[in-house]
Amino acid sequence: MRVYSRGGQPEHPVLGVEYLTGDISDRNRLRQALAGAKLVAHFADATLPQTAEDDPLATLSANLDAAFNILTLCAAGGVERLLYCSSGGTVYGIPQTLPILENAVPAPISSYGLTKYVIENAIRYFGFKHGLDYVICRPSNIYGPGQSPFRQQGIIAVAMLKTLRQEAITVFGDGSVIRDYLYIDDLTDFFLRCLGGGPGNVTVNVGSGRGYAVNEVLELIRKVSGQPLAVECLAVRSFDVPANYLDIDLANRLYGWKPRVGLEEGLRLTFAAFKKRFA
Amino acid sequence: MRVYSRGGQPEHPVLGVEYLTGDISDRNRLRQALAGAKLVAHFADATLPQTAEDDPLATLSANLDAAFNILTLCAAGGVERLLYCSSGGTVYGIPQTLPILENAVPAPISSYGLTKYVIENAIRYFGFKHGLDYVICRPSNIYGPGQSPFRQQGIIAVAMLKTLRQEAITVFGDGSVIRDYLYIDDLTDFFLRCLGGGPGNVTVNVGSGRGYAVNEVLELIRKVSGQPLAVECLAVRSFDVPANYLDIDLANRLYGWKPRVGLEEGLRLTFAAFKKRFA
Repeated sequence: MRVYSRGGQPEHPVLGVEYLTGDISDRNRLRQALAGAKLVAHFADATLPQTAEDDPLATLSANLDAAFNILTLCAAGGVERLLYCSSGGTVYGIPQTLPILENAVPAPISSYGLTKYVIENAIRYFGFKHGLDYVICRPSNIYGPGQSPFRQQGIIAVAMLKTLRQEAITVFGDGSVIRDYLYIDDLTDFFLRCLGGGPGNVTVNVGSGRGYAVNEVLELIRKVSGQPLAVECLAVRSFDVPANYLDIDLANRLYGWKPRVGLEEGLRLTFAAFKKRFA
Repeated sequence: MRVYSRGGQPEHPVLGVEYLTGDISDRNRLRQALAGAKLVAHFADATLPQTAEDDPLATLSANLDAAFNILTLCAAGGVERLLYCSSGGTVYGIPQTLPILENAVPAPISSYGLTKYVIENAIRYFGFKHGLDYVICRPSNIYGPGQSPFRQQGIIAVAMLKTLRQEAITVFGDGSVIRDYLYIDDLTDFFLRCLGGGPGNVTVNVGSGRGYAVNEVLELIRKVSGQPLAVECLAVRSFDVPANYLDIDLANRLYGWKPRVGLEEGLRLTFAAFKKRFA
């Protein structure tokens, strides 16, 4: 296995994994990274939701360039399946019905979601044209022990660090926003299943199938940590949809997948890890 | 009224229309063209279906750049409605059901359709974010007296010129491909209605609602012209979907629009004009 990323070798490298450092815009490096690959997983993104909003065209262009590089190399090589990590939380935009089914027409209202959805379409087009097998997954909000609390993404990681530091957490809106949270091990379980076989050329939601208000999540974090956590509310961001949780039947039908770790258990596991990392 | 195009002033200019020459990639010229505009119709495209297929990324990038230029200028100015001409024949890809409803999930299989669909999504995103009112129309195959027979697009115009020249027409596939053909006056009638008022922030099919095989169209052309027309078949192109015709109820409900010119009548009108133009 080979990992190609901007970050290169991590603090705790996994035995047998080859780490390559580089940018997805660097076609020559990318060619080396993909050489001989049978299964390719594209998780890279040039941007974060907040920064993407400042220059949507640049965000789109940079990510499209990278995606076409990857697609062209995959179609030319002997790649058997391309897994792309889209975004179940943002591609749909404001849902007409909940939970959201894969056959809802996406209408992203954030630059991040727009970019993910455009790349999805590029992959489906490319897959059809060049016979490249793909799985596009649309994960909900992923959290877990290894998540960084220092990005502008991931309320659970941020809330846990704030808890440990006894600082208030800043929340966009009044905390009533509903999201679908999935523990990282359930996501990697999905990745392994869909890379290990089963149907291709599909687009699949990967989430818990349940919606929690931000306030409920924070209350659960207080419960598992046994510590207080103060909240400061900021104005809601235009590109945050009020409610989003995913219908996850298709992932089960295609790959026999379902989530195993409930939110409270996942938060316990995550908090235990955060205590070791940051206390 | 102002028309901004690469071609500039046409052979027969319309009284009272100001013609400006320029490319949609030229932001400064575009700014002049849009100055003071209340209603903007974006029909421009950097490519044709065939050429778009050779370099899908370049096609996407060029058209996205232009679209963002137009959107940014519209959002900054006092534009009351933006009309965008997408493509009912290509954005849907291979339809799951016929006729195709607007709530079918698009999955374009051509570079042309991919580009149109990506721009649609950019417009919906931009419209939401900046409160820009838009109508996205998805026309079927448009034909009529003024169509050029010298492009790689538009079988009816090509067939009529071939008829007049007593040459064979080249068709991709065996002529069984089914399409929805709409007479130009019905499309302009739709444009005038949706620019004149009615609901905004909508995406609407504009077609005849009926499907005709290419062979049926050619037979009707033989009928209205009273002349023979030989056919040469080429291999089917990967990006041509086997059948496409549109459900057109929404356009009727939103704007009271429906097509008035049937295919045989439209072909008669078109052939009469082609005789004058080319005989």
